[in-house]
Amino acid sequence: MRDLTEKTISSEVIYEGHILTLRKDKVKLPDDHISFREVVEHPGAVGVVAVNDKNEVLMVCQYRKPVEEMLWEIPAGKLDKNEEPLVCAKRELEEETGYKANQWEKIFSFYTTPGFSNERMHMFFCEDLVEGHVHPDEDEFVEAKWFSYEGLMEKVQQGEVRDGKTIVGLLAVRDKIAGRKNSR
Amino acid sequence: MRDLTEKTISSEVIYEGHILTLRKDKVKLPDDHISFREVVEHPGAVGVVAVNDKNEVLMVCQYRKPVEEMLWEIPAGKLDKNEEPLVCAKRELEEETGYKANQWEKIFSFYTTPGFSNERMHMFFCEDLVEGHVHPDEDEFVEAKWFSYEGLMEKVQQGEVRDGKTIVGLLAVRDKIAGRKNSR
Repeated sequence: MRDLTEKTISSEVIYEGHILTLRKDKVKLPDDHISFREVVEHPGAVGVVAVNDKNEVLMVCQYRKPVEEMLWEIPAGKLDKNEEPLVCAKRELEEETGYKANQWEKIFSFYTTPGFSNERMHMFFCEDLVEGHVHPDEDEFVEAKWFSYEGLMEKVQQGEVRDGKTIVGLLAVRDKIAGRKNSR
Repeated sequence: MRDLTEKTISSEVIYEGHILTLRKDKVKLPDDHISFREVVEHPGAVGVVAVNDKNEVLMVCQYRKPVEEMLWEIPAGKLDKNEEPLVCAKRELEEETGYKANQWEKIFSFYTTPGFSNERMHMFFCEDLVEGHVHPDEDEFVEAKWFSYEGLMEKVQQGEVRDGKTIVGLLAVRDKIAGRKNSR
């Protein structure tokens, strides 16, 4: 494999915002030509596939301003500064849905959009859920609901569930869901 | 379902770049409070799961500046202005790998990161591939290689394949791959 590293010559912060920072890097390409890369810096995030004893998955619906739509998604959220992903996953699940879970498992981590952002998403599976109280962030409005896993897979195929991390999480736990079904 | 729409009061373009535009919207929340949303505008993109007769998947490796890593990904790319997704998928496959495909199928579309961007990704499956010549964009350096589907699934689990769209595409064609295997 050739080394295709793009070396940074200079870097300019264009915008430092509430959630994200936009940066423009001047880079040297593998053929020594000069180019520019726009980079959205993101603190990283977690996604949570929470499954109950009926193999239903806990979903939240919220308005997503960038796409001007209400979307059904798995519970998720951004990492606070220096926050461990598992701690964040537990916090976001409780904030958005009121639920706590007794069993947690890391699925894997991935980059959501490495072409223009450094956001890294840590995906978790949890079960043995206990209901509690919802307390979302003050500018966050969410509704939570359980859906059958099979029904959600159909919604993915039909484009009704169309959030990337949610599709990754749902598809990634397929064998796990099948295994639970057979063991009951 | 409550209407959780966030109405735009005003909108400010912070940066208009080569690939993306950054916008800051002042919005009215469902409880009438005021908040701000940072939105990365993106032209949309395609991803292509190209499979040969041995059930191998065509992957490309490239340096991704935002994450400062070489990543193995499915062929993909941004939509040109007014470009049909299928046209873009065929173009990107050929530019990045040299291959053309005779059979194309749309899998589904999804939002990669609806929390901060409007990027919509259109995912395609293709087969019956014919080799040709690679001709990437002038600032794009990629290497293409075939990998067994099973091997890639292991790499996803182990975090070696860690690009979101690639994971979505690979997991989404699982039944299709299994069906092809059984039919041979």
